[in-house]
Amino acid sequence: MQPIGVFDSGLGGLTVVRALTEELPGESVVYLGDTARLPYGTKGAETVVRYSRLSARFLLRHDIKMLLVACNTASAYALETLQGEAAVPVLGAVEPGASEAVAASRAGRVGVIGTLGTVRSGSYVRAIAALDPHVKVTTLACPLFVPLAEEGWLGGADGDGDLEGRAATAIAERYLGELRAREPELDVIVLGCTHYPLLRPLLARVAEGLWRRPVALVDSAGAMARAAERELARLGLLALPAGPRAPGEALHCFLTDEARFAELGARFLGHPLERVERVDLPAT
Amino acid sequence: MQPIGVFDSGLGGLTVVRALTEELPGESVVYLGDTARLPYGTKGAETVVRYSRLSARFLLRHDIKMLLVACNTASAYALETLQGEAAVPVLGAVEPGASEAVAASRAGRVGVIGTLGTVRSGSYVRAIAALDPHVKVTTLACPLFVPLAEEGWLGGADGDGDLEGRAATAIAERYLGELRAREPELDVIVLGCTHYPLLRPLLARVAEGLWRRPVALVDSAGAMARAAERELARLGLLALPAGPRAPGEALHCFLTDEARFAELGARFLGHPLERVERVDLPAT
Repeated sequence: MQPIGVFDSGLGGLTVVRALTEELPGESVVYLGDTARLPYGTKGAETVVRYSRLSARFLLRHDIKMLLVACNTASAYALETLQGEAAVPVLGAVEPGASEAVAASRAGRVGVIGTLGTVRSGSYVRAIAALDPHVKVTTLACPLFVPLAEEGWLGGADGDGDLEGRAATAIAERYLGELRAREPELDVIVLGCTHYPLLRPLLARVAEGLWRRPVALVDSAGAMARAAERELARLGLLALPAGPRAPGEALHCFLTDEARFAELGARFLGHPLERVERVDLPAT
Repeated sequence: MQPIGVFDSGLGGLTVVRALTEELPGESVVYLGDTARLPYGTKGAETVVRYSRLSARFLLRHDIKMLLVACNTASAYALETLQGEAAVPVLGAVEPGASEAVAASRAGRVGVIGTLGTVRSGSYVRAIAALDPHVKVTTLACPLFVPLAEEGWLGGADGDGDLEGRAATAIAERYLGELRAREPELDVIVLGCTHYPLLRPLLARVAEGLWRRPVALVDSAGAMARAAERELARLGLLALPAGPRAPGEALHCFLTDEARFAELGARFLGHPLERVERVDLPAT
């Protein structure tokens, strides 16, 4: 009955927790959001590796059975280090989504949307090339999607009646329109950022309008949860649901800074955070 | 003929440089953008003071006659420290805009828009209260405006023909609509972020549509340039234009990281950066 550990530079990784608790209702999660030092995307490799090792060490002290690195930048820079050092399985943010995208694409053409940092790192291009060098990958940075998700202007599947919906729709049409202009033949789009699952209904609606044929949206948070499930099943470590649980039992959340966590956390998680502690990580 | 020193956590402070070179065509500027460590808004006071002193020390070694702190967070946390330590006048990012807003408002009701960090710091509320405690200040964080300006989706004064314009217009209508709902009587809005001068035509158009009477937009970058001009004139230090100058003579730009600087820098400055060097600042 050990918990799964999840860390991210901020609160976005709670979309991974949400997917985990939906796919694996018997599991408990310990979450660490290094909100005092976000974003990682603008920091150098050495710094990101240092921060990631500190986060991993903190979670390992909570007796976790598996570590999920929900931050794309930490995955790109620190995954191999963490896998070499931790005594438990370590899953990154990129490989699960890349793997589902390759499996889902019949055309062999995949689009990846993410932050400027994720796109610049080339991590999805490398991960997909390692899985299947024949798949053509088109990446596009969408800098307005993170603040859009954080503001909760989600557009939704039903249209764009109000100003927030109109803004969200125009932004999504602008970005996915550029992706379509660059790769009209793609049939899979990877949502390569932990914030993007909130925008999924909006993106599905806009993609349908643009391509007028099925385009699969692969959500990297859901893909991580499914990869964790497979790995835990393989190791015989899956926890089965054992009846109702007390509030805060399924998720224990640690943050290095508490600004704005309640509203954002609930948005990413799908319900309010019940058990949150502030924690100081050492600098080195 | 000493230069003016300007520092910011990123490239946004180039809107202050642009205003300076428009108001004071005889001056030279040395600019430092601490792009490797941005944003400052999520960092603690002690860290911001340390970074600000390092930036100030770097610029003072370039024999500047005045120091402008274009970063709101650095102004909020480090201005007094820098004013106490530097042998040249030091101007912050908040007081000049606050002062112009108080002078411009007949209704005694001022709106301030900025980043989440600037709004949360309360720096404009304090600065305006110090100037005139009877002025009522309504602040609103507009997290989508910075990525909007960085993407160059500026909407503009002419309307919203394309998707970028439609997105920009809907975002501006949403934010300024909330500001109007909270304070319909305001007659001045401070653009309290160095990125916002790029959005000025859009914001002017949307404000006119919402209020249907004149609402003055006080741009904090322009206000800083005007405050610098007054202070230099008072000290007899104004440099008068002395004929055409060689490329790179009017502005020497230093950045601590060079990612994406060319496109963004040109957008904020109004023309391409001619003389850019990467520089490493010490950690302490």
